[in-house]
Amino acid sequence: MAVTKIEPRIFKGARDFLPDEMIHREDIIKQMRAVFQKYGFEPIETPAIEYLNVLTGKYGEDADRLIYKLNYKTGTKDEAALHYDLTVPFSRVIAMHKDLTKPFRRYQIQPVWRADTPQPKQGRFREFYQCDIDAIGSKSMLVDAEIICIVNEILTALGFKGFLIRVNNRKVLNGFVQYMGLDESLTGEICRSIDKLDKMPMKEVVQELLSKNIPVENVVKLSEIFPPGADGKVGRITMAKAEELMKGIAIGEEGITELNQLFAYLGCMNIPKENFVFDMSLARGLDYYTGPIFETTLPSQPHIGSLTGGGRYDNLISSFSGVDTPAVGTTLGLDRIFSAMQQLGMLSKANTRTKILVTVFSKDTILNSLGLTSSLRNAGINAEIYHEPVKLKSQFSYADKKGIKYVAIIGEDEIKNGQVTIKDMITGEQKIYTNEELLKWASGI
Amino acid sequence: MAVTKIEPRIFKGARDFLPDEMIHREDIIKQMRAVFQKYGFEPIETPAIEYLNVLTGKYGEDADRLIYKLNYKTGTKDEAALHYDLTVPFSRVIAMHKDLTKPFRRYQIQPVWRADTPQPKQGRFREFYQCDIDAIGSKSMLVDAEIICIVNEILTALGFKGFLIRVNNRKVLNGFVQYMGLDESLTGEICRSIDKLDKMPMKEVVQELLSKNIPVENVVKLSEIFPPGADGKVGRITMAKAEELMKGIAIGEEGITELNQLFAYLGCMNIPKENFVFDMSLARGLDYYTGPIFETTLPSQPHIGSLTGGGRYDNLISSFSGVDTPAVGTTLGLDRIFSAMQQLGMLSKANTRTKILVTVFSKDTILNSLGLTSSLRNAGINAEIYHEPVKLKSQFSYADKKGIKYVAIIGEDEIKNGQVTIKDMITGEQKIYTNEELLKWASGI
Repeated sequence: MAVTKIEPRIFKGARDFLPDEMIHREDIIKQMRAVFQKYGFEPIETPAIEYLNVLTGKYGEDADRLIYKLNYKTGTKDEAALHYDLTVPFSRVIAMHKDLTKPFRRYQIQPVWRADTPQPKQGRFREFYQCDIDAIGSKSMLVDAEIICIVNEILTALGFKGFLIRVNNRKVLNGFVQYMGLDESLTGEICRSIDKLDKMPMKEVVQELLSKNIPVENVVKLSEIFPPGADGKVGRITMAKAEELMKGIAIGEEGITELNQLFAYLGCMNIPKENFVFDMSLARGLDYYTGPIFETTLPSQPHIGSLTGGGRYDNLISSFSGVDTPAVGTTLGLDRIFSAMQQLGMLSKANTRTKILVTVFSKDTILNSLGLTSSLRNAGINAEIYHEPVKLKSQFSYADKKGIKYVAIIGEDEIKNGQVTIKDMITGEQKIYTNEELLKWASGI
Repeated sequence: MAVTKIEPRIFKGARDFLPDEMIHREDIIKQMRAVFQKYGFEPIETPAIEYLNVLTGKYGEDADRLIYKLNYKTGTKDEAALHYDLTVPFSRVIAMHKDLTKPFRRYQIQPVWRADTPQPKQGRFREFYQCDIDAIGSKSMLVDAEIICIVNEILTALGFKGFLIRVNNRKVLNGFVQYMGLDESLTGEICRSIDKLDKMPMKEVVQELLSKNIPVENVVKLSEIFPPGADGKVGRITMAKAEELMKGIAIGEEGITELNQLFAYLGCMNIPKENFVFDMSLARGLDYYTGPIFETTLPSQPHIGSLTGGGRYDNLISSFSGVDTPAVGTTLGLDRIFSAMQQLGMLSKANTRTKILVTVFSKDTILNSLGLTSSLRNAGINAEIYHEPVKLKSQFSYADKKGIKYVAIIGEDEIKNGQVTIKDMITGEQKIYTNEELLKWASGI
């Protein structure tokens, strides 16, 4: 076949995942799936390609510009594009399949695409995975509590320690805008400023609000309320204090009631008290949240950013499908979680899942080595056979490079005695086993 | 947030996978992964988006037309497209990462895209999954044997019975063209005709070759050799007969030696003799094969088509990367396998993996139900709690619709006595357990 030679290049902002990363990514996803399933979430997948008009007009203009369009029926209603996230395609599925039993809990783990300027160092890519869970069709705080529990259980199972799930409620933030004596229309503006209290000192946030022509007598209410915290930043307002502030503000009281309910549920689920906290300074970027919101960070590793983020969005799907469809969900950032685990030394070096390499002593003993390899595999043990009867040293070197811990040697002596020599590639130690002993030993490695 | 209402439509030729299909697809992939790993294959992933010039000129003109291009830097060398298969992106990875330890065995499970006319009934879609395994860097027949064993082990584990892995060698087909007294340049033509012997009678194949101006004295050699078979089609040539035909034809003898070696290796691996067969009428479509080729069908279900197909292609990667890189691999057709399992009634009805639904008797007992749900989950059991204290009948109906087999009831009596009532939704039977008994029982469901 005639093949034109071309320079092998990878698309800018995209990544190849080789085994050393893929093995961990697979393990993380496997862990996530197990927990999702434990809570009754079911898998769905949607195609990468959607009609462009299904995607646009949902995220805002800035995001719309980042949608990758295909060179396909351009300018028609059949113009096609790559999905920008998993939430809008999921909303489309819900709108098309009205018969799905509600509440419908789904997980969806797929790549998404954004025509952004790649910043690999900041973990920003053009193609990356999202792991989303969403439960639709229920306004019960039980469902919100479940989502928070899932986040807790996954991060714990992955080995994270000291993470904190910060919880707030958009209704409380709406109430707080009223408490500040400001018009509801300023909620977005105020939320964005409050959100920064985690990263910058109060006086800078105040300055910012003043520069946006918010009157000083209103802004001062903000600065008075938050207690002083570490590093010149603010501390946390307690639930009791928030409850006091919201007295007489209907929307705020509603938010407090929801949070009390939510925390009561969390109290009798599998989640340690120190892993979550009420945090009135959490606002989250997206406009569509309507109730509880939550975000997970590693307080001791502020540079890592949030590992998960989500909340309740009771109006998004209904405005899409025309049917009242309350919803709550979260994204777990696979890339962020992987990168955090890498930075925190939580990942072992892994180039392979092979437990044992069976070497081939000579041309005449290939079938013996192959028989042994087969019986190891029959016993459910991941085993490789070296492909050529070359010098044992080269075969050891292959095991070494790939990170296979054990090597089996069957030379003529071993064959005669029905034995196998096992070499531990790390300690260099060698041990002789009968075939039967070997299978027993190998089942435990 | 203002959202424009649009008609929810799915891209033509693409599919949404809802839980009833996704659960099975996930299980099939999980099974594949386990076997791949047992044979030392490691996971990789490549991005969906590749530069267009990485993809074109590899598959032939017809296929190139089916590549989805993005509306991105059109006409420049940075023009981008969606990958058409996983083999070319894998070749690019090999060319870019020359330091990968060889032999390098990888599996890769990802969607691919083809701008084709969708024919859902024939299982032809514009977006579908490929599950590929390839081993590069070895010419040893051990590696070919492994690939065949993997196919056998996966199909067996999935529950297929009576499948047949047909095995041939391109070198034997090359030799056969010489045996027919024809020029090597006609190999492709002859292969395509031989490939049809499985589907049409010999006389039609002969007619086709004559119509292509192949002299009758050559064509007759083909019709003489194949023994008569069932349904007017041809039977199989034995290995002994093939060996006899190839005597004195160097390339053919080489092919026979390889096949003998391959079958000797298969003989001492985990594969029953009746699951594979030498079949000189197997040719496979793609031009790039150079050695053993193999394809799996269900002889009793001819309409289903091949479940897997692959072979050795020692020159493809080297012509791409410039470095000698022998390779052998196979594709396992996830959609084809899923559809075959569906048609053969091998898949249970599955809308959920939830084992048990914990109902909520009243507003006052939510926390009791939640506590029980948590302890079930703690014990590793997939459990859901109903989200609202509505009538039990509605909660049972939810379990029924979702296909959850067991329902737990904790009313006031149960709470008082530290008990739980379990209802089997299929038989209607009810049993009372203490909390401790329940966890023990539930671990076994």
